[in-house]
Amino acid sequence: MKRVAIVGTSGFTGKECLRLLANHPGVKDVILMSARDAPSPPTQYRGALAEPPSQPFDAEVLTGLDAVFVCAPHDASAALVPLLLERVHTVIDLSAAFRLSDPALYPLHYGFAHPAPMLLASAVYGLPELGREALRDARLIANPGCYVTSVVLPVRPLLEAHCIAQESDIIADCKSGVSGAGKASTAVTHFASAHDDFRAYAVGTHRHEPEIREQTRCQRVYFTPHLLPLFRGILSTIHIVPGAGVRADDIRAALRDRYASERFVRVLAEDAGLPCIADVRQSNGCAIGVAQHGDRVVVVSCIDNLIKGAAGQAIQNFNVAFGLDEAAGLPAPTDERLQGWS
Amino acid sequence: MKRVAIVGTSGFTGKECLRLLANHPGVKDVILMSARDAPSPPTQYRGALAEPPSQPFDAEVLTGLDAVFVCAPHDASAALVPLLLERVHTVIDLSAAFRLSDPALYPLHYGFAHPAPMLLASAVYGLPELGREALRDARLIANPGCYVTSVVLPVRPLLEAHCIAQESDIIADCKSGVSGAGKASTAVTHFASAHDDFRAYAVGTHRHEPEIREQTRCQRVYFTPHLLPLFRGILSTIHIVPGAGVRADDIRAALRDRYASERFVRVLAEDAGLPCIADVRQSNGCAIGVAQHGDRVVVVSCIDNLIKGAAGQAIQNFNVAFGLDEAAGLPAPTDERLQGWS
Amino acid sequence: MKRVAIVGTSGFTGKECLRLLANHPGVKDVILMSARDAPSPPTQYRGALAEPPSQPFDAEVLTGLDAVFVCAPHDASAALVPLLLERVHTVIDLSAAFRLSDPALYPLHYGFAHPAPMLLASAVYGLPELGREALRDARLIANPGCYVTSVVLPVRPLLEAHCIAQESDIIADCKSGVSGAGKASTAVTHFASAHDDFRAYAVGTHRHEPEIREQTRCQRVYFTPHLLPLFRGILSTIHIVPGAGVRADDIRAALRDRYASERFVRVLAEDAGLPCIADVRQSNGCAIGVAQHGDRVVVVSCIDNLIKGAAGQAIQNFNVAFGLDEAAGLPAPTDERLQGWS
Amino acid sequence: MKRVAIVGTSGFTGKECLRLLANHPGVKDVILMSARDAPSPPTQYRGALAEPPSQPFDAEVLTGLDAVFVCAPHDASAALVPLLLERVHTVIDLSAAFRLSDPALYPLHYGFAHPAPMLLASAVYGLPELGREALRDARLIANPGCYVTSVVLPVRPLLEAHCIAQESDIIADCKSGVSGAGKASTAVTHFASAHDDFRAYAVGTHRHEPEIREQTRCQRVYFTPHLLPLFRGILSTIHIVPGAGVRADDIRAALRDRYASERFVRVLAEDAGLPCIADVRQSNGCAIGVAQHGDRVVVVSCIDNLIKGAAGQAIQNFNVAFGLDEAAGLPAPTDERLQGWS
Repeated sequence: MKRVAIVGTSGFTGKECLRLLANHPGVKDVILMSARDAPSPPTQYRGALAEPPSQPFDAEVLTGLDAVFVCAPHDASAALVPLLLERVHTVIDLSAAFRLSDPALYPLHYGFAHPAPMLLASAVYGLPELGREALRDARLIANPGCYVTSVVLPVRPLLEAHCIAQESDIIADCKSGVSGAGKASTAVTHFASAHDDFRAYAVGTHRHEPEIREQTRCQRVYFTPHLLPLFRGILSTIHIVPGAGVRADDIRAALRDRYASERFVRVLAEDAGLPCIADVRQSNGCAIGVAQHGDRVVVVSCIDNLIKGAAGQAIQNFNVAFGLDEAAGLPAPTDERLQGWS
Repeated sequence: MKRVAIVGTSGFTGKECLRLLANHPGVKDVILMSARDAPSPPTQYRGALAEPPSQPFDAEVLTGLDAVFVCAPHDASAALVPLLLERVHTVIDLSAAFRLSDPALYPLHYGFAHPAPMLLASAVYGLPELGREALRDARLIANPGCYVTSVVLPVRPLLEAHCIAQESDIIADCKSGVSGAGKASTAVTHFASAHDDFRAYAVGTHRHEPEIREQTRCQRVYFTPHLLPLFRGILSTIHIVPGAGVRADDIRAALRDRYASERFVRVLAEDAGLPCIADVRQSNGCAIGVAQHGDRVVVVSCIDNLIKGAAGQAIQNFNVAFGLDEAAGLPAPTDERLQGWS
Repeated sequence: MKRVAIVGTSGFTGKECLRLLANHPGVKDVILMSARDAPSPPTQYRGALAEPPSQPFDAEVLTGLDAVFVCAPHDASAALVPLLLERVHTVIDLSAAFRLSDPALYPLHYGFAHPAPMLLASAVYGLPELGREALRDARLIANPGCYVTSVVLPVRPLLEAHCIAQESDIIADCKSGVSGAGKASTAVTHFASAHDDFRAYAVGTHRHEPEIREQTRCQRVYFTPHLLPLFRGILSTIHIVPGAGVRADDIRAALRDRYASERFVRVLAEDAGLPCIADVRQSNGCAIGVAQHGDRVVVVSCIDNLIKGAAGQAIQNFNVAFGLDEAAGLPAPTDERLQGWS
Repeated sequence: MKRVAIVGTSGFTGKECLRLLANHPGVKDVILMSARDAPSPPTQYRGALAEPPSQPFDAEVLTGLDAVFVCAPHDASAALVPLLLERVHTVIDLSAAFRLSDPALYPLHYGFAHPAPMLLASAVYGLPELGREALRDARLIANPGCYVTSVVLPVRPLLEAHCIAQESDIIADCKSGVSGAGKASTAVTHFASAHDDFRAYAVGTHRHEPEIREQTRCQRVYFTPHLLPLFRGILSTIHIVPGAGVRADDIRAALRDRYASERFVRVLAEDAGLPCIADVRQSNGCAIGVAQHGDRVVVVSCIDNLIKGAAGQAIQNFNVAFGLDEAAGLPAPTDERLQGWS
C-alpha cells in the first residue's frame, strides 16, 4: 500500500485526484496539503466541488512518502517540486512546470523564468500510451495538458506511421468544458456567460500549442481552443491531409493497431460513427473516431478533461511508475465497464 | 419625449433598463452614469451582458431630467436618492432602499441605518396593478422586489376578496433564476455550481419576506427562496387554504375579475393548466394559474425577474407617472404579441 | 455470489441498475432482458445513456436466479411479477405495481385494474431505513417512488416523534430533474423546452401523493411536483407546523437521533445549512436539513432520483434481503467517501 | 402595407418568422397556414416555442398576397412552391428546395428527384450582402442555409479579394445550437443527450457542404458540423492559408472594407478579440473576427441560426425584394442597438 499526498486541493484537479485516490485499492492514506503556507478560506462550493480540509504546506510532513501529486499553479509547482524531490520517491506534477523541455519557453508562455531548468531534462512526460517504459520508477513525472492529451494520442501515431501527408498542416480545432477554465470566479465562468455561449479563445497564443508541437514532434499542428457550455469534457476535431493513397479506413486501422492492447484508448469502428463527450465522461478513456471528408480525413478525439486530461492520467502514471495494475483506481470507458455482462 | 438617466449600469438590472429604454418610443435620450465616482473597469461580459460605457457619478449632470432610474446597491441608493430628488422630477429606485415603510427594518435586514428615513413615507410603492393612482406624478417610486412582485400580485387580491381562510398560513415556495443572484462572480454563480444544482437559501431570513408581508398586509405569508439552474425567471408556488366553500374555480374567477383590464397580468383558464417560466420570459407579463389540491389550492405565478421583477416594472411605473401609454417600451407576454394574427 | 437479472433495460432506471450492479462485489452475473418479447430498436443515445444489448423477454431463462430487478412500465410489471415469483427467489419491482396496498387505487391512479391484487398484501415496501426487518428474505419487494423516498424519510419519523402539530397540513413542494420524466422523447423532454424552463405539473393528481400518504400514514401531506432544468436529482422543500414548543433544533435532533446509525441518511448540522442536489448526486444518500421559519419549520431533503430514488435503493433492498453488506455496490454521499482522509 | 403568409408554422423557423413579422412595420396581416392539408395536433410546447393556430393548407386562400414565407420540409417545399408562384408575387422558401442550381444534387443529398428543376435557374439565392441587386422584385427567393450563411459571408469576399492562398484547403469547423436539429423529439434532442454533450456529425456528408461550395465558388471548402449544448446560435471557426504576404490585419481590413456599409455584418476590431455567440444572439447580425495563427489565419463567424441563419434573413430578403427599409422588423446586433446612447 502506497502512502501519498496531494499538494493543492482547492482547484478542480486536486479535488479530482482525491476523489479517485479515495477509491484506489493500492493507496492507504492521502495527506491533503495546501500549496500555500496558509489554509484556504472556506467556500460555498458543495457536493463534488467542495474542498476537503487540508493542512498548510509543510514539506517536512511529506518526507518519506511514496508519491506526491502536485496540483498547484505553474510557478508555484516549479518552486515546490525541487523541495519535494528531496523528500519523496516520486513527484507527479499536474501543472505545466516540467512539461516543456526548453526553459526559454517558460518566460514566453508562462510568464516566469524557470527556477529549476536542470530538472526539465530529467522530467518524464507522462503519456503512458506513448512512453510507458520511461515512467517506470520515474522520480519526476510531468503530467500532460488536457488539450494536449486529446490531440497527441491520435496525431503522434499517425505521423509516425506516415499516414499524414508530409508538410501538410494539421488543424486541431478543440473544444473544452468550463472546468478547463478553473475554479476562479470570473466573468467568463459566471453562469450568465458560460451557460449559453460558445467562443474561441487564445487563438495562436495558447500555452498548449508548444506542448502539442513538442509531443507530436511536428511544428505544423495548429491548435485552436474553444469554451463549451458544459462542465466536463474535451472534443478535438483534427483535420488532416492523408498521405498519398491513405484513406480513413487506413487511418482507423493504424490507430486500432497502435492501441490494440491499451486499456484506455478506444478507436471506434466505422459503424459506431464518431465519438461524443458522453462516451468518455467520468472515465479515464480516450475515444477516437475517423471519417473520410472528401480527399481529406477528420479525426475526432474525446476525453474527460479532469480525468484522462488531468487527475486520471496522473494516477495512471503513478500506477505505471510503481508497477501497480495500470488501471487501478481508474474508471474505464462506459462500454468497457459493461462488457462481459450478458 | 422624456429625458432620463440610469444610475448604475454595471449590474443586470441597469443593463436591462437600458435595453428596454433604448426601444421606448417616448424617451429621447438616456444618460448612463455609474453609481460611483470612478468609472467601472472593463469586464469580459459579452452580448446582452456587456456593460455600456458610462460616466462617473455626477449629480449636476442630471439636473433637469424628467426621470432617473437608480440601479445601485441598497445603501448607495439610500444615499443617492435624496441628492437626485433635488434635481430631477421623478426618481425610480430599483433597490430596496425605499420599499419598507418602517426605517427600523433597514439595520435588521439590510445592515445599514437608513440615512433618509423621512423619505420612506413619501415613497410610492411601484406595483401599478395594485396602486396605479398613487404613481401618477409620483416623485419617488420604490420599485418592488422581484420575488415580491410574483407573490403579491396573486395573494393580495385573494386576501382582499376573502378567498383565503383567515389565520391560515400562506406558503410561498419561490424559485428564481441565477440572474437574481447578480453579476458578482462567486462560488454560487460559477457555472460549476449553478448549471447543475438547485438549492433553497435564506430560509426565514430573506429580505423579501418583510416586504411581502407589508405589501400583502399579511404577517402569515412564509416565503422560501430557491436558486434555479437557468438565467431568467421566477416561478412562485403558493400554497393556500381557501375560505369556507371556496374552490380553485372561485379563486381563478376572482383573479380574472381583478385583473380583467390589466395589460400585463394573465390568469390562465383552467384548461391552459399552470404557467411556466417560458410563458413570460422576455416579457413584462405575470402569468398566474390555479389548481385545486384536495381541500387546499395551489396558485402558481411566473414573471421574468429582470423585466416585471425589475426593469420592466420600473418602466411601467415611469409610464404611469408621466401619463404615457402604460405599455410603452414593454414587451407583452408571448401569446398576446401574436394574438390577432390569423 | 448472487445471480441476478434486470428485466427492462431501455429506460434510465434499468440502465442505472446495470451500472451499479456491474460494480457490485456480491453479484457475479447480470442477465439483461427486455420487458417485451421483441428486442428494442437501437437508439442514438450515447455514453451513460446507451442501452446495453438485451434479450427478448423469456421467463424460463430466469429460472433459478437469486433476484430479478424489474424496470418495466407499471402495468407490464404487474403482469410480469407473478411469473417471475414462480421462478426466482426475490423480485424487486421498481415500478409502482406493488407499492399501494389498496388495489382500488390502481384504476384510479394508474389506469389499469390490478391483475394480481392478492400479491399487494405480501409485497414488502422497500425503504430500509424505515422497515429493514421485513425486507430480510423478502420474496417481493416494491421499490419506492423517487419523490416518495425524499418526502417519507424526513416526514415519517417526525410524525412518529410528534414533532409536527397534529391536524396541521404538511406541504411537500418537490422539484425533480428531467430524468424523472423518463427517456421518452416528447415536447417536455426536448432540449428546447427542458433546458431553460421550470414548471409545476400534476398538482393534486400526481400518483406519488397516495403513496406518500400511505407511507407517512398521514392524509394531510400535500405533494406538488415540479420539473427542474437539470438531469439528476430531487430536492423536496417540506413546510411544517411544529408541535407546541418544538423548534427547528428539536426537529434536527430528532432526525439525527433517528438516523444516527444509518449509512445513507445524513442530517446536516445547523452550521452546514440546507442541503443541495450536488450534495447527493451520484450517491445513494439522502441529505436532510432543517431551518426555523418564524413559528414554522422548513425541512429540505435531497436525493439522486435515479439512485436513492430508484436503482440504488433497489440494490440496497437486495443487499438487505440477502444479508449482504447493506452498502455493497452503492456510492456513499460525497463527504462520507472522503472522510477519514487527512 | 404588405400582406403575407407563412406556410408551415409548426417548426422553429416558421414560428421565428411569425415572431419577427408580428413586429414588422410594413406588414399588416400574416396568414398562418400549415404545409399540410390537416391541422397540426396540439403540443406541449410553451412560451416562445408554442405553435400559433394555423389553417390547413389551401393555396386559394393565398391568392393575391404579396409574399409567402415557406417553412416546410425540403420535398414539401419543392412541391408547394410552383403552386404558390402562380398565386402570389414573391415566394421566399426557407427550405433547401431551390438553393442548389444543379438538380442532380437533390436525389443525392436530399433524397428526392426535384419536381420543378426548371425553377432552379430562376430562383435567386437570398444572401443580400453578396447579391442584393438580383433580389429586387425577385419572384422566387431561396433562403440560404444557416451554416452556409455563417461560412459564405466571410469566405467569399476573401476569395474574391485573393486573400486566401490559391489551391489551399479552407477548413470550416462549425458548431450549431440544438435548434438547428429541429423540433422533432428524438434521442439527440432529448435533454438527457443534448444538455451535457457535444459531438461532430455528418462529417463529409452534410447537405450544406455542396451549398457552401456553390456559394463560395470554391470546391476546396471542407465543412464539419457539430452540435452545441445550447439552443440558438452558430459559431464557425474557419482555418485558412493566407495568400503570400497576407496577414490577419489585411484580412480584417478586407472584410471591413467589403462590409463597411452593411447593417448586419460586423467585423470586429483587433482589440475586440473574436466574436462569441452572445454577441449576435436574438439579432440579425453576423459578427466576424480574425486572428493570426502562426503563418495561418483563423476567421470566426457568429450568427443566430434562427434569425440571420433563417427567419431574419428571409425577412431581410423580403425587405429588399419589395424596396422596404432593409432592416425593417429586424433586430440589430446588441451593440448597434445601444450605440448613440450617451
